[in-house]
Amino acid sequence: MKVMVLGGDGFCGWPTALKLVNRGHDVMIVDNFSRRGIDMELNSNSLTRIADINSRIDSANMLIGPIDYRFIDIAEQYDEFKMLVQQWQPDTIVHFAEQRAAPYSMISQKERRYTVDNNINVTHNVLNAIVDVDPNIHLVHLGTMGVYGYSKDFGDIPEGYLNVKVNSTEKDVDILYPTNPGSVYHMTKSMDQLLFQFYNKNWKLKITDLHQGIVWGTETEETKMDPDLVNRFDYDGIYGTVLNRFISQAAADVPLTIYGTGGQKRAFIHIEDTANCVSLAAENPPTNTDKVRIFNQVSEVCTVKELAEIISKQYGGSIAYHENPRKELPANDLAVSNEGLRSLGFEPILLNVSLIDDVKFIAEKVKGNLNKSNVMTSPKW
Amino acid sequence: MKVMVLGGDGFCGWPTALKLVNRGHDVMIVDNFSRRGIDMELNSNSLTRIADINSRIDSANMLIGPIDYRFIDIAEQYDEFKMLVQQWQPDTIVHFAEQRAAPYSMISQKERRYTVDNNINVTHNVLNAIVDVDPNIHLVHLGTMGVYGYSKDFGDIPEGYLNVKVNSTEKDVDILYPTNPGSVYHMTKSMDQLLFQFYNKNWKLKITDLHQGIVWGTETEETKMDPDLVNRFDYDGIYGTVLNRFISQAAADVPLTIYGTGGQKRAFIHIEDTANCVSLAAENPPTNTDKVRIFNQVSEVCTVKELAEIISKQYGGSIAYHENPRKELPANDLAVSNEGLRSLGFEPILLNVSLIDDVKFIAEKVKGNLNKSNVMTSPKW
Repeated sequence: MKVMVLGGDGFCGWPTALKLVNRGHDVMIVDNFSRRGIDMELNSNSLTRIADINSRIDSANMLIGPIDYRFIDIAEQYDEFKMLVQQWQPDTIVHFAEQRAAPYSMISQKERRYTVDNNINVTHNVLNAIVDVDPNIHLVHLGTMGVYGYSKDFGDIPEGYLNVKVNSTEKDVDILYPTNPGSVYHMTKSMDQLLFQFYNKNWKLKITDLHQGIVWGTETEETKMDPDLVNRFDYDGIYGTVLNRFISQAAADVPLTIYGTGGQKRAFIHIEDTANCVSLAAENPPTNTDKVRIFNQVSEVCTVKELAEIISKQYGGSIAYHENPRKELPANDLAVSNEGLRSLGFEPILLNVSLIDDVKFIAEKVKGNLNKSNVMTSPKW
Repeated sequence: MKVMVLGGDGFCGWPTALKLVNRGHDVMIVDNFSRRGIDMELNSNSLTRIADINSRIDSANMLIGPIDYRFIDIAEQYDEFKMLVQQWQPDTIVHFAEQRAAPYSMISQKERRYTVDNNINVTHNVLNAIVDVDPNIHLVHLGTMGVYGYSKDFGDIPEGYLNVKVNSTEKDVDILYPTNPGSVYHMTKSMDQLLFQFYNKNWKLKITDLHQGIVWGTETEETKMDPDLVNRFDYDGIYGTVLNRFISQAAADVPLTIYGTGGQKRAFIHIEDTANCVSLAAENPPTNTDKVRIFNQVSEVCTVKELAEIISKQYGGSIAYHENPRKELPANDLAVSNEGLRSLGFEPILLNVSLIDDVKFIAEKVKGNLNKSNVMTSPKW
């Protein structure tokens, strides 16, 4: 299968691109390297030293299989992107090419506006290129669990669609889950859903939207093969996901920082599972186009406090509670269906000490790169 | 009250700006004149000869009251727009600054992409300017009935929110009406709603979203005062709304063209009512910011076939049925609540022969400008 991976130089994109190659697919990465640019803008860095794209591609070709890349800013360069799709003829396009940090999207008008402008225009340009070039291309998009919100009224979280009775007509209908995003970033993923609904309805496009939990870990089977293939590891207050931040804090001998009570229950997934789930979705396109296929891409749920306690118990280190910069419930319950991906063969990697150990090893190996002043940098909203 | 009218040179924006001035408000128009540009792009024209903006503004100042304008492309020039908001200090911003033709938004990738890029970025930039300058500014946005869709399962159309029972929890909740837009244009208004929901939730912005029916007519009390104040009258297949197209066809002695069966029931509103409703909404801001206030801005419902028959009976002229270029139900039922605006004093102008006559007079007076080849130009989707 020929798979184009948009945003294939990023934290989820790169290990997924390698996984796809390792599973026998032909991969073309399209990226504008904006994530590397934002590191400079924020004076932040990956705890791991990531290789430049040419070294990454050369090593991957040598060690794993056929992979190439093109520098295109998809939000800005529609014609170039469309031409590449026309020439390369992918069977599947995997779309990670969005600004993906909630805190970044809430810094100021500049970041809010960039996030909306980039994310919406990339998604829309990709849909248009598919309509214009080949409506049979399967689009696999990385969405987020964060669109659902945490209302008790809605019950356990289904996969994208909620069954309700309309009180005025007493009819039972499946509706797109009414979203309640918690940041501008999450809002863009909720808006993406409306783009998918319409392009599916009007042009019968084949679309899989993966509502992913919070990713932890950094390495996969493939990124471990060579130093040139190593993945990003973000630990800062803006791009570091919560568990990776805790691990870095433990490694740096500073307190683990919980925002609010820690009672926020969230869905988690290891980066190895991200790469495997996206591959499964790509390898098993929807069999009909009656609606957008939505899967929850999550392995398990856990509160932020439970997470901190696992790390603290294992590696020492105190826990410090800080005012929550986000507007969110202090505590919530959460139960999530992940039947869709399980039906395709997904077997989740669960949080456990040996795996966290693995990640901690990374953190320790590279903690010389850790800039302590970057750990607590979340904007307040 | 100081009211900024974005898109205030357009078909709905201009008569609304004049209405607001006539009701004693101070008005600042912001426009990039994109609608005049699209006339050149499509080789279409307004049946009425509209004055240039300077003549419009001079005459309005002389005959009605204080009004000014600035040329700003709000999607592209955030800093300029924000500075104007800072300097001029509006109490209310009325937002018409979106590409508003469904057929235009479905011509090709260029128009689809322009519609999304412009409409989303204008709305988002306006919200950001309000957050950054003064979160007390009341935003009044022109939305569309077209976001609702026409499903029987959902019953009569409420004002923005639908009461449902979640079957898994048996809880009754009001949700944002699950949208089912029929074009890329309508989809952008559906996406706008998500922007409003989030900015209202996070910053408590005061927002009124007016879901408007299909506008007919062209003149208002104010636009009739002077030839320099005359409003646009679009009759082409792209920008002409259905009733205005029928009136032009009758005036030009060509058949009235119905796409599909004519059984499509739609909500209508006269342009005089548009101007009055927006003024009412602006003069009566929401008293709390718990949620976005949504009103249906409609006067009555009627099928397309009924409309054609009124015109045909009165003025002669046959009715010709054409294949429907749109993907939509051949016929539908529709009942719409407009309690919100009625509670503020709105008394709808209903479709009747004398009023249509008034519009027909315009059409006849200016039919020398009518380019017959522009009447049937809708793209197929």
